[in-house]
Amino acid sequence: MPKKIAVLPGDGIGPEIVAEALKVLSFINADMGLGLSFETALVGGAAYDAFGTPLPQQTLNLCKNADAVLLGAVGGPKWEPLAHAVRPERGLLGIRSELNLFSNLRPAILYPQLVHASTLKPEVVSGLDLMIVRELTGGIYFGQPRGIHIAESGEKVGANTEIYSESEIRRIAHSAFRIAQKRHKRLCSVDKANVLEVTELWRNVMTEVGKDYPDVELSHMYVDNAAMQLVRAPKQFDVIVTTNMFGDILSDVAAMLTGSIGMLPSASLDANAKGMYEPIHGSAPDIAGQGIANPLATILSVAMMLRYTFNQPEAAERIEAAVNAALDSNVRTADIYSDGMTQVSTSGMGDAVLKAL
Amino acid sequence: MPKKIAVLPGDGIGPEIVAEALKVLSFINADMGLGLSFETALVGGAAYDAFGTPLPQQTLNLCKNADAVLLGAVGGPKWEPLAHAVRPERGLLGIRSELNLFSNLRPAILYPQLVHASTLKPEVVSGLDLMIVRELTGGIYFGQPRGIHIAESGEKVGANTEIYSESEIRRIAHSAFRIAQKRHKRLCSVDKANVLEVTELWRNVMTEVGKDYPDVELSHMYVDNAAMQLVRAPKQFDVIVTTNMFGDILSDVAAMLTGSIGMLPSASLDANAKGMYEPIHGSAPDIAGQGIANPLATILSVAMMLRYTFNQPEAAERIEAAVNAALDSNVRTADIYSDGMTQVSTSGMGDAVLKAL
Ligand SMILES: CC(C)[C@H](C(=O)O)[C@@H](O)C(=O)O
Ligand SMILES: CC(C)[C@H](C(=O)O)[C@@H](O)C(=O)O
Repeated sequence: MPKKIAVLPGDGIGPEIVAEALKVLSFINADMGLGLSFETALVGGAAYDAFGTPLPQQTLNLCKNADAVLLGAVGGPKWEPLAHAVRPERGLLGIRSELNLFSNLRPAILYPQLVHASTLKPEVVSGLDLMIVRELTGGIYFGQPRGIHIAESGEKVGANTEIYSESEIRRIAHSAFRIAQKRHKRLCSVDKANVLEVTELWRNVMTEVGKDYPDVELSHMYVDNAAMQLVRAPKQFDVIVTTNMFGDILSDVAAMLTGSIGMLPSASLDANAKGMYEPIHGSAPDIAGQGIANPLATILSVAMMLRYTFNQPEAAERIEAAVNAALDSNVRTADIYSDGMTQVSTSGMGDAVLKAL
Repeated sequence: MPKKIAVLPGDGIGPEIVAEALKVLSFINADMGLGLSFETALVGGAAYDAFGTPLPQQTLNLCKNADAVLLGAVGGPKWEPLAHAVRPERGLLGIRSELNLFSNLRPAILYPQLVHASTLKPEVVSGLDLMIVRELTGGIYFGQPRGIHIAESGEKVGANTEIYSESEIRRIAHSAFRIAQKRHKRLCSVDKANVLEVTELWRNVMTEVGKDYPDVELSHMYVDNAAMQLVRAPKQFDVIVTTNMFGDILSDVAAMLTGSIGMLPSASLDANAKGMYEPIHGSAPDIAGQGIANPLATILSVAMMLRYTFNQPEAAERIEAAVNAALDSNVRTADIYSDGMTQVSTSGMGDAVLKAL
């Protein structure tokens, strides 16, 4: 059974970092006989420029027929003037939705070699290792009705709908509880149940699903408090589960706590562990084409792919260990550079990981 | 013309901290002949316990007839099992909405005496002084339709509506630009215009209103990036303006950067500078009744009241200087205590401010 990976380099630094990740993945593929095959397609701004749409049908078909998708990043100022419907982000949102990738895993790990990179005091963040599980195909991102209309008064009114059904909440709850079971068995569900009925339902369903996981300690927190607690004492968290919108914000806060968002991967999974894998950082158009971007987040995304979609934990651990070894050898891309280290290019970092494999 | 202040101590530590703020305000009132008068009423859980509603009609009438409202805090675990409609928070939301207090000012200031209290490194936060302007009577907090209903499939579905009209955005924009004009003339509007149409309208109206304020530099940022930037480099911001929901989250992040949320006041203003003033922290039921809560946020809220509603900048500055002097005299409540300081009670801190006046 061939295992197909759709490769979507995207925009900005996407192609550069994906190239490094593929170098690593190809090596592991050959070395361990994993039988993975690759096919590349356009998405985002690059697809818009070529086809007039950020998600061409052939790209979507490729993704649907693949077992996993490796994505670089999408977007950039070049496409910001475009209408909503054809903006690069729509490519990303389209894949998430069409492939039903409802469970978005965003680990925030502070590498001991990079403690200094955090803006937080070392005692607050050292050893940080938390996982945010973000619902990715529902909520206000996709709710109807939406749009801008003209009211009777003649003025424009904009509206979006935050909506969740019990079944949508239930499936992300199960995802999160299962992940908590494999970690430290503590799950914090984040909502705004004191104001928003949609998240009151969220809280109730989380509590109900929690009964199936008596070994996991479930707590609830309001989103404003959770954002505060991430800054005050982030190590109190093991796994956080939350809505699409709150997860967008909280996962970026959590990522920034580590001081090196160039290091953080993500997985977006459907019910059968088919998934899209991408770095959590963006397309960084300001440094695109310079060969200085950090490819480690994308390389670590490949490790997540091997673990979650292809059930190859050993291969995943090999990559993660190689990333650690590369850091131990003191090579650093510009974003994580500090005194006394050796600065390397994007491909220099890819090579360092390859060498450590 | 008598100037009436409605005093709503609320729940938890509310009564204790409001008592200290009134001590300070009464002194200034007499000393400077401000002619302020006070009347107290119940709100939140305390009102629910007495009248079965968190916002009794007589409390609302008192607020409507007053020039300013001084609020302690509402809520606590005791009332969490209650139905949404009668929860203590509804008292707060009801006053905001009924009094049209659409402009919520939340300064995040790091006191030099308390730099150590932040979890962020001193070089990242020292000198921090930013202002968040949060829209407070619209957005998803108040949008219709809302609620939990049973779908055709038989399952429950929860929904809330994020909605803003041009005029709602325009008035908060003017508030924010005027505040920026009095500060460092930089305004960052935070939205999620790449995904939510309602905030695309937000962005467009901000840009349009910005033309009236050519002396203010307007920028736009997506909410996930803004949350990140607050952790990465908070001093880049002067004034941030954002929606009700995003403001709830970002203002708590900003507050926590200072490490001492017991220090931070807030103002919620209508179009005529009538306002409600309250600390940004909550009712802290765990320490209620122990006389250890920090009253400074409430005392500083009174200073905001004198500045914004009663147009008494001198009186406001006197209180702010007295708070500074109290900190300089090394008295600290438990929440901001550190080695070598003198720990004082809630009323001890109130006395220290009075003494410095
Ligand atoms: C690019 C944007 C649409 C996207 C999102 O909001 O989900 C991004 O911020 C992310 O977190 O993956
Ligand atoms: C208590 C709650 C309803 C309130 C809000 O969400 O506005 C609080 O968090 C705040 O920020 O004032």
